[in-house]
Amino acid sequence: MSKFWSPLVNDLVPYVPGEQPKVANLVKLNTNENPYGPSPKVLEAIRGELDESLRLYPDPEGESLRQTIADYYQVTPEQVFLGNGSDEVLAHIFYGLFQHGEPVLFPDITYSFYPVYCGLYKIEGQPVPVTDSFEIDPEDYKQPNGGIILPNPNAPTGRYLGLGHIEDILKSNPDRVVVIDEAYVDFGGDTAIALVDRYPNLLVSQTLSKARSLAGLRVGFAVGHPDLIEALNRVKNSFNSYPLDRLALAGAQAAFEDEEWFQKCCHGVIAERERLTAALEGLSFEVLPSKANFVFARHTTKSGADIAAGLREQGIIVRHFNKPRIQEFLRITIGTPEQNDALISGLQTL
Amino acid sequence: MSKFWSPLVNDLVPYVPGEQPKVANLVKLNTNENPYGPSPKVLEAIRGELDESLRLYPDPEGESLRQTIADYYQVTPEQVFLGNGSDEVLAHIFYGLFQHGEPVLFPDITYSFYPVYCGLYKIEGQPVPVTDSFEIDPEDYKQPNGGIILPNPNAPTGRYLGLGHIEDILKSNPDRVVVIDEAYVDFGGDTAIALVDRYPNLLVSQTLSKARSLAGLRVGFAVGHPDLIEALNRVKNSFNSYPLDRLALAGAQAAFEDEEWFQKCCHGVIAERERLTAALEGLSFEVLPSKANFVFARHTTKSGADIAAGLREQGIIVRHFNKPRIQEFLRITIGTPEQNDALISGLQTL
Repeated sequence: MSKFWSPLVNDLVPYVPGEQPKVANLVKLNTNENPYGPSPKVLEAIRGELDESLRLYPDPEGESLRQTIADYYQVTPEQVFLGNGSDEVLAHIFYGLFQHGEPVLFPDITYSFYPVYCGLYKIEGQPVPVTDSFEIDPEDYKQPNGGIILPNPNAPTGRYLGLGHIEDILKSNPDRVVVIDEAYVDFGGDTAIALVDRYPNLLVSQTLSKARSLAGLRVGFAVGHPDLIEALNRVKNSFNSYPLDRLALAGAQAAFEDEEWFQKCCHGVIAERERLTAALEGLSFEVLPSKANFVFARHTTKSGADIAAGLREQGIIVRHFNKPRIQEFLRITIGTPEQNDALISGLQTL
Repeated sequence: MSKFWSPLVNDLVPYVPGEQPKVANLVKLNTNENPYGPSPKVLEAIRGELDESLRLYPDPEGESLRQTIADYYQVTPEQVFLGNGSDEVLAHIFYGLFQHGEPVLFPDITYSFYPVYCGLYKIEGQPVPVTDSFEIDPEDYKQPNGGIILPNPNAPTGRYLGLGHIEDILKSNPDRVVVIDEAYVDFGGDTAIALVDRYPNLLVSQTLSKARSLAGLRVGFAVGHPDLIEALNRVKNSFNSYPLDRLALAGAQAAFEDEEWFQKCCHGVIAERERLTAALEGLSFEVLPSKANFVFARHTTKSGADIAAGLREQGIIVRHFNKPRIQEFLRITIGTPEQNDALISGLQTL
């Protein structure tokens, strides 16, 4: 530790993102990117912004994009907050809405950035075990807390919790913010945005990195009661006035305006997910039911680490978490039909 | 205040960025954007990235851009930290390097985001008065502190502090990080990056928003000892793994690769700054000596607020700060020759 560091820096345990290999020709099924590219209209919209106006600051409020998202989900722009990827949105949520002197609850098996945010801001986190079948039980979220955050579908399990159960959690925690992190909701789940007008304690976060194929553009957002959005704006405007650049604002808006492309990509991923699930089951894998663009699977006899290493030798990358309860599982992103075929062939040789 | 807010949210006093008007045909001299657009090679590089690869996450480490910046300044990539605009870089600096239980020092007249970061992270800030001629006196920075941050040239004064004085401050504070915020250094100052190998307590931040005409792309960086950069990386990787999108990484790199364009734009701004300064002096303004892409000027008899309002009626926007010591001043961004002529004409009618 350097004498120059703020004391907290030494204790930080940063998030480790999935590998972004620089080698070409890999079958990359490790970071839940969409196998299909973004809408051609997104590229066209960005091209339209690509001129000398880059010398000018972007709209710090992202008004046009917020209006587009508001229209899409039938809410108001005052209910929409934008960020530089949903990770930034989540960071501001932890800082602005989760500091109440009681532990923040999240599943023990979940997005591994949540405990990192707790470490960054010195907030106590309380992992809540999922059931033996890796499900979230709403009853477990009826205990004192400083806030609750759940991915839905959960990651890396892929398991989806119905909105009725979400409402149960919301009703049991009227004085705390409940965040539903819907990074993967468009691959078969229903969004809780439909509930925001009835629950002032509900905040829903989403990203354009998955279903809208824009991981490379860094856009995320949250929808909730204007009071919650105001807290996030206060934090954002005390951190970075202009988190979204001009190209990202234009591209994100175009992504919401091409519903046909969006639906086509989502349906394609869902169809491949069902096909891959059946194939994995045929190869003696147990596959958790997934509503995401990945499956979480373990072989009935072989070790998860060994399978991941064996696939890697064949140029196929999947994600293996060396963590309690899930060390035998692999998280496999749904690829193109060709990529999924390569994975199945690769597994057959192991 | 909502019951859902973290208690600190209520006390936040966010930064207020200069207005980004949505009306066309304004002479916009209020946010220090470059009057010249980015290099055509920047637009070309971004166009080259604009394809289906946007579905993939960017390089979380920005290795290629860091290497380019390192080569440009003759340092190593381990001495370079990237952020989503220099405001994000500065936020991470305050959090990761300035929490030592003693007040952070900065000039009383300076970039108004510094006290905002202090408020965000509950760090005590200690404004240090600039002299009557609005200069920074190194002697004033020889007092106990938790860190020091100075823009050089200072904003909004435009006054530049020679590197000898910076070294004086560095030598007097061997146990504290001294940050030189060089947002405007390319318009006539010398960068303190030349000193980083000799002072492990020096961190230099820069932005591509000003001299490189890319305010709309959101790229900033810091250069310093690898220990300081590691602190920033720990904070960054606990906040957002991918702060720079694929297009920003490509565009920023191209900006550093077109030295000719960069020099041409800087020289153009400097020449116009000298012309505008002379014209303002001819109109009974006192103009502080500036090494930035703006001038800070007050009329010998007329009120700053009245002049700003009068210009606005003519569609010319400059920045007026209603703050102690500087309420009679206007901060005027150097525009194109045509914009500067419009300003001069506008002032003549008031």
